[in-house]
Amino acid sequence: MADNTEGRTELSSLGEFALIDRLTDDFPLRNASSFKGVGDDCAVIGTGDMKTVVTTQTMAEGVHFDMTYTPLRHLGYKAVAIALSNVAAMNARPRQVLVSLAVSNRYSLEALEELYAGIRLCCDRYDVDLVGGDTSSSRSGMVITVTAVGEVAEKKIAYRSGARLHDLICVSGDLGSAYSGLLVLQREKVTFQVDPNFQPHLESYDYVLERYLKPEPRLDIVDLLDKHAIVPSAMIDVSDGLASELLHLCKQSGCGCEVYEERLPIDYQTSRVCSEMSKNMLPVSNALNGGEDFELLFTIHQSDYEKIKELNEIHIIGHITEEGSPAVMVTPQNTTIQLRAQGWQGNE
Amino acid sequence: MADNTEGRTELSSLGEFALIDRLTDDFPLRNASSFKGVGDDCAVIGTGDMKTVVTTQTMAEGVHFDMTYTPLRHLGYKAVAIALSNVAAMNARPRQVLVSLAVSNRYSLEALEELYAGIRLCCDRYDVDLVGGDTSSSRSGMVITVTAVGEVAEKKIAYRSGARLHDLICVSGDLGSAYSGLLVLQREKVTFQVDPNFQPHLESYDYVLERYLKPEPRLDIVDLLDKHAIVPSAMIDVSDGLASELLHLCKQSGCGCEVYEERLPIDYQTSRVCSEMSKNMLPVSNALNGGEDFELLFTIHQSDYEKIKELNEIHIIGHITEEGSPAVMVTPQNTTIQLRAQGWQGNE
Repeated sequence: MADNTEGRTELSSLGEFALIDRLTDDFPLRNASSFKGVGDDCAVIGTGDMKTVVTTQTMAEGVHFDMTYTPLRHLGYKAVAIALSNVAAMNARPRQVLVSLAVSNRYSLEALEELYAGIRLCCDRYDVDLVGGDTSSSRSGMVITVTAVGEVAEKKIAYRSGARLHDLICVSGDLGSAYSGLLVLQREKVTFQVDPNFQPHLESYDYVLERYLKPEPRLDIVDLLDKHAIVPSAMIDVSDGLASELLHLCKQSGCGCEVYEERLPIDYQTSRVCSEMSKNMLPVSNALNGGEDFELLFTIHQSDYEKIKELNEIHIIGHITEEGSPAVMVTPQNTTIQLRAQGWQGNE
Repeated sequence: MADNTEGRTELSSLGEFALIDRLTDDFPLRNASSFKGVGDDCAVIGTGDMKTVVTTQTMAEGVHFDMTYTPLRHLGYKAVAIALSNVAAMNARPRQVLVSLAVSNRYSLEALEELYAGIRLCCDRYDVDLVGGDTSSSRSGMVITVTAVGEVAEKKIAYRSGARLHDLICVSGDLGSAYSGLLVLQREKVTFQVDPNFQPHLESYDYVLERYLKPEPRLDIVDLLDKHAIVPSAMIDVSDGLASELLHLCKQSGCGCEVYEERLPIDYQTSRVCSEMSKNMLPVSNALNGGEDFELLFTIHQSDYEKIKELNEIHIIGHITEEGSPAVMVTPQNTTIQLRAQGWQGNE
């Protein structure tokens, strides 16, 4: 395929987000019930005080998951979990999901039952109802799209665009562990391909593997914030890595940010995996660019500092800077590094 | 791949609907706002008098569309139109859509802009807002999933399950034309493959081609029924052919039905294409099994007969029979044929 055919712009030449901006920039909102359209973790719908949030998320075989090391039950769980994570990122509670599945005949009924067992498990865990969807065949592989519906009071919605100068930047849980889990699985796959008698030793990687294979939406954080009467000024979930999400928040809030490397929460297994993989692999790179942690990244007003500082699982990693400033990370050596996002990860 | 591996049930051995039933039969509804779950054209959500309906619909390249004869603009239009058709089938009005796209790098930015131009056209035509979605890469081809959100007063919702003994069975528009359009396109494709200099002559097939490539959700029928104060006792859209939809209505309403072959609305182009294709191809087979007409099939109480009989575009094709009776078609020769649905159309 020619890369430079006249009049042809390769998707790989755009970032994923530039592509979405380009495709969706000419869609005005006409209906009174369309409260917030494209550009956040969920759309917001409704005319009353309680709003409905809706989001849709696709996972494609060979891109978002590799069947050689993804148990179908985990896949079903994860597909629902990441859609619920989008609902959590609006400071909302999920209530319903719809699952659309395109699968080739390579999959058996028993395989799909495993997938649905995982879907059921995640629905049970988060009190969410499966209310619809469709199932059709695909030419090859599996594509699973989950639509999640949730609800939230209008005054509690956390958009990406609400961060203000001097707000504190917080993140839940830890960062980079899901990507470390993926690295371990990819290493085992290569070893297995070289020696099919190889038995994987995964016991000491249980935490990072679970983070990758079975992520949890941080609805407990939504509850925790609510219990302490904190409404984040802005929020997003960490699906593409901290750097990418910080850039979204800053762009949409019209501000800059400063985060401190030594404040980033990184689990010891994440660090150990990095040191095993290569002497040049830094845990902080996994945290910034690894993705799929599905933690919540949010900002709060300084006046909420006293309320948040004692909460387990929430880490204050920096603060919002003024409009026109870049998004930067300050290292322990006091060097300032400008944050950059990853590009489109395409496949032929 | 072994077809008879022990403990392996091929998807091709189940119908699509048996598969969905099997996968989704163990999902209880827990949330008060989950008003109606799996099993109709849309899920119904909400606790007030006005309900929100949500549906999701997937189209996969090589299964639901063939890029050799599907202009991308038409594809975008159609993907939205068939989701809106599901909303119409609940007697509801669509308000928002979300579009999830998985595409390989084979597609250029310009190609996706064409697709979105079609999405925009359909949104404009039906006053629907694009409010979200996601775009990701796929290993091969394109899978497009559209989620549509609509609204309807609770007392006007038309489920599949509401048909009662002696209700009249109605259908809008005409049947079998979309499938005839597909047959023409497939014939042209084969001819082109044999002789690449071949120029297709499609002028005289404009109606059936448009029916296949650019179907319209029958929201005008929803408006028409409302204007005449008719609430269908049951409704479904014709996506898989009349036979399959009648069987759904009867199964979910716990009844049988009798439709009359000579009452089925069939366009003359549909009949002409059939006679060109093969002397054994009957237009009525296209109407029963062709699919993708996206007309509305509904039942009304006999008391609404006077209101409906003068309405253009609506055809009374039969009536509901008692529980335990089969779903049958009566031919002009007074022969009774039991209706059967198509099976799973899988691809490796």
